Amino acid sequence: MFFHRKQLMLDVKVEDPQAQFGQMLLEQFGGATGELTAALTYWTQSFHVEDSAIRDMLQDIAIEEFSHLEMVGRMIEQHTEKGDKDKAYKSTLFAVRGIGPHLVDSQGQAWTSAYVNEGGNVVRDLRADIAAEAGARQTYEALIKLSPDAGSKEALTFLLTREISHTNMFMKALDSLGKLDDPAFGHVRPDETVNLYFNLSQDGQLDARGPWNEEPAFEYVADPAPRGQAPEKVKNPDDEHRKARAAE
Amino acid sequence: MFFHRKQLMLDVKVEDPQAQFGQMLLEQFGGATGELTAALTYWTQSFHVEDSAIRDMLQDIAIEEFSHLEMVGRMIEQHTEKGDKDKAYKSTLFAVRGIGPHLVDSQGQAWTSAYVNEGGNVVRDLRADIAAEAGARQTYEALIKLSPDAGSKEALTFLLTREISHTNMFMKALDSLGKLDDPAFGHVRPDETVNLYFNLSQDGQLDARGPWNEEPAFEYVADPAPRGQAPEKVKNPDDEHRKARAAE
Amino acid sequence: MFFHRKQLMLDVKVEDPQAQFGQMLLEQFGGATGELTAALTYWTQSFHVEDSAIRDMLQDIAIEEFSHLEMVGRMIEQHTEKGDKDKAYKSTLFAVRGIGPHLVDSQGQAWTSAYVNEGGNVVRDLRADIAAEAGARQTYEALIKLSPDAGSKEALTFLLTREISHTNMFMKALDSLGKLDDPAFGHVRPDETVNLYFNLSQDGQLDARGPWNEEPAFEYVADPAPRGQAPEKVKNPDDEHRKARAAE
Amino acid sequence: MFFHRKQLMLDVKVEDPQAQFGQMLLEQFGGATGELTAALTYWTQSFHVEDSAIRDMLQDIAIEEFSHLEMVGRMIEQHTEKGDKDKAYKSTLFAVRGIGPHLVDSQGQAWTSAYVNEGGNVVRDLRADIAAEAGARQTYEALIKLSPDAGSKEALTFLLTREISHTNMFMKALDSLGKLDDPAFGHVRPDETVNLYFNLSQDGQLDARGPWNEEPAFEYVADPAPRGQAPEKVKNPDDEHRKARAAE
Amino acid sequence: MFFHRKQLMLDVKVEDPQAQFGQMLLEQFGGATGELTAALTYWTQSFHVEDSAIRDMLQDIAIEEFSHLEMVGRMIEQHTEKGDKDKAYKSTLFAVRGIGPHLVDSQGQAWTSAYVNEGGNVVRDLRADIAAEAGARQTYEALIKLSPDAGSKEALTFLLTREISHTNMFMKALDSLGKLDDPAFGHVRPDETVNLYFNLSQDGQLDARGPWNEEPAFEYVADPAPRGQAPEKVKNPDDEHRKARAAE
Amino acid sequence: MFFHRKQLMLDVKVEDPQAQFGQMLLEQFGGATGELTAALTYWTQSFHVEDSAIRDMLQDIAIEEFSHLEMVGRMIEQHTEKGDKDKAYKSTLFAVRGIGPHLVDSQGQAWTSAYVNEGGNVVRDLRADIAAEAGARQTYEALIKLSPDAGSKEALTFLLTREISHTNMFMKALDSLGKLDDPAFGHVRPDETVNLYFNLSQDGQLDARGPWNEEPAFEYVADPAPRGQAPEKVKNPDDEHRKARAAE
Repeated sequence: MFFHRKQLMLDVKVEDPQAQFGQMLLEQFGGATGELTAALTYWTQSFHVEDSAIRDMLQDIAIEEFSHLEMVGRMIEQHTEKGDKDKAYKSTLFAVRGIGPHLVDSQGQAWTSAYVNEGGNVVRDLRADIAAEAGARQTYEALIKLSPDAGSKEALTFLLTREISHTNMFMKALDSLGKLDDPAFGHVRPDETVNLYFNLSQDGQLDARGPWNEEPAFEYVADPAPRGQAPEKVKNPDDEHRKARAAE
Repeated sequence: MFFHRKQLMLDVKVEDPQAQFGQMLLEQFGGATGELTAALTYWTQSFHVEDSAIRDMLQDIAIEEFSHLEMVGRMIEQHTEKGDKDKAYKSTLFAVRGIGPHLVDSQGQAWTSAYVNEGGNVVRDLRADIAAEAGARQTYEALIKLSPDAGSKEALTFLLTREISHTNMFMKALDSLGKLDDPAFGHVRPDETVNLYFNLSQDGQLDARGPWNEEPAFEYVADPAPRGQAPEKVKNPDDEHRKARAAE
Repeated sequence: MFFHRKQLMLDVKVEDPQAQFGQMLLEQFGGATGELTAALTYWTQSFHVEDSAIRDMLQDIAIEEFSHLEMVGRMIEQHTEKGDKDKAYKSTLFAVRGIGPHLVDSQGQAWTSAYVNEGGNVVRDLRADIAAEAGARQTYEALIKLSPDAGSKEALTFLLTREISHTNMFMKALDSLGKLDDPAFGHVRPDETVNLYFNLSQDGQLDARGPWNEEPAFEYVADPAPRGQAPEKVKNPDDEHRKARAAE
Repeated sequence: MFFHRKQLMLDVKVEDPQAQFGQMLLEQFGGATGELTAALTYWTQSFHVEDSAIRDMLQDIAIEEFSHLEMVGRMIEQHTEKGDKDKAYKSTLFAVRGIGPHLVDSQGQAWTSAYVNEGGNVVRDLRADIAAEAGARQTYEALIKLSPDAGSKEALTFLLTREISHTNMFMKALDSLGKLDDPAFGHVRPDETVNLYFNLSQDGQLDARGPWNEEPAFEYVADPAPRGQAPEKVKNPDDEHRKARAAE
Repeated sequence: MFFHRKQLMLDVKVEDPQAQFGQMLLEQFGGATGELTAALTYWTQSFHVEDSAIRDMLQDIAIEEFSHLEMVGRMIEQHTEKGDKDKAYKSTLFAVRGIGPHLVDSQGQAWTSAYVNEGGNVVRDLRADIAAEAGARQTYEALIKLSPDAGSKEALTFLLTREISHTNMFMKALDSLGKLDDPAFGHVRPDETVNLYFNLSQDGQLDARGPWNEEPAFEYVADPAPRGQAPEKVKNPDDEHRKARAAE
Repeated sequence: MFFHRKQLMLDVKVEDPQAQFGQMLLEQFGGATGELTAALTYWTQSFHVEDSAIRDMLQDIAIEEFSHLEMVGRMIEQHTEKGDKDKAYKSTLFAVRGIGPHLVDSQGQAWTSAYVNEGGNVVRDLRADIAAEAGARQTYEALIKLSPDAGSKEALTFLLTREISHTNMFMKALDSLGKLDDPAFGHVRPDETVNLYFNLSQDGQLDARGPWNEEPAFEYVADPAPRGQAPEKVKNPDDEHRKARAAE
């Protein structure tokens, strides 16, 4: 069961309200890498994770993300609430849709659960979570660069920090399953091609080697060829037969 | 520049064509965890990754995923091509839309690039890639369980295997950046809250401890409280004033 | 700031788990009329509503809807968790995506914030909320009819009940603004056409009269005609000129 | 059966064409609160409403909304048709997609029927309609504020007026069903919790009281607690067991 | 300005109501190839087509498509209205969402204006229209095969017929512009590669020749090679440098 | 099976990098008329086209479109890579999402397979392809007009040229089936209404005549009337009965 207190997790104090920056902040309210994506991803995962300790962790973090969503929303509110007569304000979506946050990204695209990556296995879920946090962190860094004032920067730095904290938690949980650096998981045994690296994008100069395609972990196939056969050649109709068939 | 040969990367031989299984296979043709998502994710990432060796790896793997997409499509083609008069076939989307693969998932939802997670930083990209592979692997395992014939199983096992291979490559590349087990990346220094774990979903019995919230890596906050203040209380209008204001 | 306790708002006890009913329940987890839509609608509205008393009400109800979302999710979890080898289970989306709830509707369509109706004015918001509750109530009634067991029915009846409770709250709040039965609101004065009813779908027999088109509230226009003019006739090119122009 | 005459319902005379305002107008052509949403909502509802008098009203209003859509389209056409060489024009979507209206909102997002709220019950439908009109009215007010010329303002004021007219019609129809101020409808009897108000977003200062949570209509629960039980504690594996299980 | 009469363009008499077929019919109500797509495509095009004669044709056909949409809706209404207690009915989306048509396709996916292809040039529009009609015709043929009764078949055959009629009109209009069999249009002169055919999907056996790649219209390039250069080789960091850079 | 070489099909040399133009170019990377739409349309069609010669053509062209996608991506990369500190750059989506191409259109909307038109019949597919090429060509012309430098213009002209080349190929293939100027195809015989033209959008002045509605190909119906009957008049309840029924 959910509860709420009216105080923010951390105060947000915008000193230089700019609606255009408010619109960019929507990326973390209703965008792909935003707090709603994080909160709903971990929350939804928690229903099918059997291990109740990891389930607890997912719920703890999900709840925190909802509180972050609230902080981002309050920041957007402050960046937009005074802007009504401002010319810059009039070029934002807030002029048409009203002040405060909306569930869209910085380009006005509606939030979709297609952003949410979850299902079937806790290893898959935790890897998805580390990826979600990396996307969130990346966007916060971009927003910090674009921030017009110190108050916004400070709040965004807190939010970025917590994404790193969560990444650390997810890494530790994944490591407790032995799956932080072991690629395989689940019940299907891989076949004999598991160590092959196929050099499919070719160029003498630019074909690079590195730990991701070197022995002994990998066998490098420098010039891969199809192992399948070509489809049998169907006798093609000539054009007269084509016309006859299409006219049927 | 792209090239194509008509032979498949590996032959696909469906022995027991079942349109309903064909519809499930759409999950890996036009679904969230499918080959199109993988191919386009790595391909799009390759444009902004500065390190040309990792760029090469992303392109090699992207091209392989396109070849996997082709295999999945050919499998769907075989599962649907003879089904026209079959009653089971008539309950599938192929009865309305025609045989062969379509760019939708097993529930008929259109593919969207909202599935693609990329941008701005190679660490973020590689973490997204490991997550993408985990999702793909998970779906392949589910499909193998549902497979009606050995030919389908064999092809799906090859495809699952390659997802593990790619995961290994991405892990090795991430490790070469020192970021497989280091949560932080980028240019913003985290603040002092980076080690706090907030126990926000509470229950005496179920509040679990584990490597993801234990000392010394983490400081466990058993009963977190807001650090922000409550909004100031605005004097609320009584109902008469409410009506007057709303009637303006 | 958000908090969570692990106990449900009300227990959910599924006695006859059926994955196909579980899939229908997704309509209220990730569907248009579901609890996520309700929670996020009221929550997002609360950021721009100036009247802090109504803001408080919106937040109270939003938090309750999150707890309802949790109940629905737990119900889906129970309807799917034992089904793995079941044939009926295999025709559901859970066979491909794993047990437990996902953020899609009963047809597998991703949740989108396009379902959320909010912005700019508290009267608009409250009317949207009454509509949202009516949709939710309607779906719960449909699901109750389809429920396989008494435990599911009981939980769904509680959830339906609370939608009525919320409707009552929203109506009372709207009435406190004088806007439950007054169509106008906002700052623009309507023009002189405000009382016209245009009989635009015509049939001697079926043109019905009722309180929505009768005097004195309305002036009934039995056979409406355009008040605008036709566009000026542009001299059309003959076909030779058409070709010349298109070939440019 | 549909018919059309080339004259507009009301003339639209744009005196100061501005492509950027034309883009904002898209909100009412292909946006969530726009005329297409209204027209298709009422039209789709009319198929399942059993009461043929209300069905007639829904069709009358739907047809009017199509005529409004035409007016909005013509307004956009005028705001964009002369702009080709204009620098301001070049920052609009019309520069890439051509002049005249497109079925997207002011942010370029495609229209989706996810905006349409309908189904199963006439009370639900009418409440949805009042909400749809409120959204449309709100957007028209925002656009009137942003209008560059008197001709646009006049046409928009007419369109806003008609939304109020329709709201009045829907309210009267809902009242004829006794459901304008009665929250319940349908065939399921609410349970005993119907009058409870849960104070779930808490703060001593800001917990407000009003007609929406006062006696006798409501019983105010100042400090709600879960009525459900916590899930049973599953014995969690230690990390060694976690690894073993995940490696299977 | 739009008008409506309550009689259908052509009667629809369903003799064997089957909700499952009703769900398939949704493909032409709210699906990609459906009547809404057709109506809104031609309608939206009509705003920017300068030639008022072709504009008139687009409007005539658009209005007819709205009348077809009505017929399809009425057919769905009949296929679903008696089904409430039927077991087959309960496996359809109508069981959850109510009887009658909804703005989704046969798989439950919301209609989106992404289906609409229009903008900028009448040749482009007319080619899009011929394609739209071809899709609609194809789906009608599939539905006729699946029809359970003669009344449905007859109505669907009328609707299919009219798609052919419209195709003929669009072809004649395109031919009046000289663009039915001339690929080029618009103001940009093609470069010297316009006649090259690149054999990019290769196989000795299956590389086919036909009017689409034969002389004199085309010059066949049997083994195409890149004309661009490879990107310059960036000196790649070794792994130590990678780590250092990523840790910044 | 797919292969790739690192050289571009044709070099792209941007001389005047402008991030705002880069954002417009997204229309052809991740937009409706873009190269991804083309590539995936032809590729998906190739799976169900029975005639292996036309299948080969579809694959040849699909592969070329992937190479065009690469060129567009490289152009966007160049237009954005140096922009980081630029003020104009900061108003683009690249400031938030990073440099290089993303799978969205110029308005930031995610690519969706709803853009892809294919299925069931080769005539339908080829007509869809001619439409797809027309849309692509139109957008390229718009972009050429907006291009800031000669290098961009040259690359875009090449891409536009190839759309015309492909159109020519598709026309020739369609003509080889006898279906370039014959509206009918498939197995259902049209009914007797096939030659009727309905003048449904009326105006004495503007009702135009042309090859698309003239004899002998068409019979012009100047004032069409419904051929169906009105629905039977249902006895409507008075308001008291309405209330009683709704209160049930």
